[in-house]
Amino acid sequence: MSISIREVLELLADSDGGSPENGVDRLEYGDPDTAVKGIATAFIASQHVIERAKSLEVNLLITHEGLFYNHFQPGEQIARTDVVREKKSMIEQSGVAIYRNHDGVHRSQPDGITYGLVRELDWLDELDGYRSFAAMIRLPGLTVAEIAAHVKNKLGLGQVRVVGDRTMSCERIGVLVGYRGGGNPVIPLFERENLDLILYGEGPEWETPEYVKDSISQNKPRALVILGHAASEAPGMKYLAESLQTKLPDIPVHFISEAPLFEIL
Amino acid sequence: MSISIREVLELLADSDGGSPENGVDRLEYGDPDTAVKGIATAFIASQHVIERAKSLEVNLLITHEGLFYNHFQPGEQIARTDVVREKKSMIEQSGVAIYRNHDGVHRSQPDGITYGLVRELDWLDELDGYRSFAAMIRLPGLTVAEIAAHVKNKLGLGQVRVVGDRTMSCERIGVLVGYRGGGNPVIPLFERENLDLILYGEGPEWETPEYVKDSISQNKPRALVILGHAASEAPGMKYLAESLQTKLPDIPVHFISEAPLFEIL
Repeated sequence: MSISIREVLELLADSDGGSPENGVDRLEYGDPDTAVKGIATAFIASQHVIERAKSLEVNLLITHEGLFYNHFQPGEQIARTDVVREKKSMIEQSGVAIYRNHDGVHRSQPDGITYGLVRELDWLDELDGYRSFAAMIRLPGLTVAEIAAHVKNKLGLGQVRVVGDRTMSCERIGVLVGYRGGGNPVIPLFERENLDLILYGEGPEWETPEYVKDSISQNKPRALVILGHAASEAPGMKYLAESLQTKLPDIPVHFISEAPLFEIL
Repeated sequence: MSISIREVLELLADSDGGSPENGVDRLEYGDPDTAVKGIATAFIASQHVIERAKSLEVNLLITHEGLFYNHFQPGEQIARTDVVREKKSMIEQSGVAIYRNHDGVHRSQPDGITYGLVRELDWLDELDGYRSFAAMIRLPGLTVAEIAAHVKNKLGLGQVRVVGDRTMSCERIGVLVGYRGGGNPVIPLFERENLDLILYGEGPEWETPEYVKDSISQNKPRALVILGHAASEAPGMKYLAESLQTKLPDIPVHFISEAPLFEIL
């Protein structure tokens, strides 16, 4: 039984209650009437990921972040660079269609990216519901350092960035993916939900981290474990691959992971 | 001879060609007619920095970033937190006036924050001018790892984050402070100025770093050394303290440094 790209995208959109073209989500490359031979998901359609998709004989790649280094379409100056032009021509020659699935997967109930991270952290049994952008975890008895070690182990990370006292014992933890680490979502959440620790992907360095530093100066111990944007969202795209595989048992669905982008020297 | 806060702020504004209240810059706390006993500069007016200023008998603190975890005034939800309320009352009781000097010091020619970083890196002899937001450095013969080691040593950092091949030899280097690491300022600069390496403070993780990763996939080797926002801008505030001391020889002017905010686990 053959299924077209269009039908796969409609299946995806049905499950998140939206449509295939919504917000930043769209089929960036490829003909929607092409029959799908294989699907892969990934955090971002880097050149390495597209080459890997080709070698897996996948012709539909579903990725979370933008192709050209910007949440929206790249500006004129970026679009004119040699790297962008060569990447575009490489994609056109690859025969791989690329669909961006950002807003859709976040719109799912619960947010598919947040759920995927909680699942990968093996905290589904400790999940105490969702508050706006965050998953609430109750996990008594572990220190910040023990939680950091758990996170690194489950996500296969070489390191995480931590603010606060690594020996502090934590009970109430908030988890936010992607660029949800800014002061506006995170700072009020700490106090409203009485959280000891927040894990997030990425956020401006002198917003939430400086709040936590001042909070510690006031003898209100709090801590952050900062995973990195990709590390926090890739598990959600892995979860999406598994969900799609269940719905499309006859088509191979892969998740393509990548090595961490940053090296600490 | 006595000098008021107002006169110090006018002196600062004269040298950058602006006025004391400009953009986000303003006297956040204190009476401008108070006589200045001592001055301190710092990257940010954390609670720790304010306490240190008090113990130095300083009554004018000049800091680069916002008091309440936001580039602009904090939103309603942040303003209502216990940490903000306690910090406000601590500042009011401290007797320390706080002036934010962000736009002014960046507006100087050259940008005082960028100049301060280049000076702290001991690269003034290698400085090949400025292009928009960046300082251009020509420094032949060092690898990425050697440059990272030099930067850590000069800035007293435990680590930097690196993207790219640490053994790559670099000649043309761009230096950008603060949150100037985004794709729009940095990506076109790499190609226009034919740079091998860019050092910056902070930027969104999947913009410039993903460009560099794709560039490497295309056999166009490039690299990033990411310092952190505070590490990239504190040297400029240190330089500002020294400039002020020269202009005000009778008043003690200090620079208050802080330990790195993030720990790597």
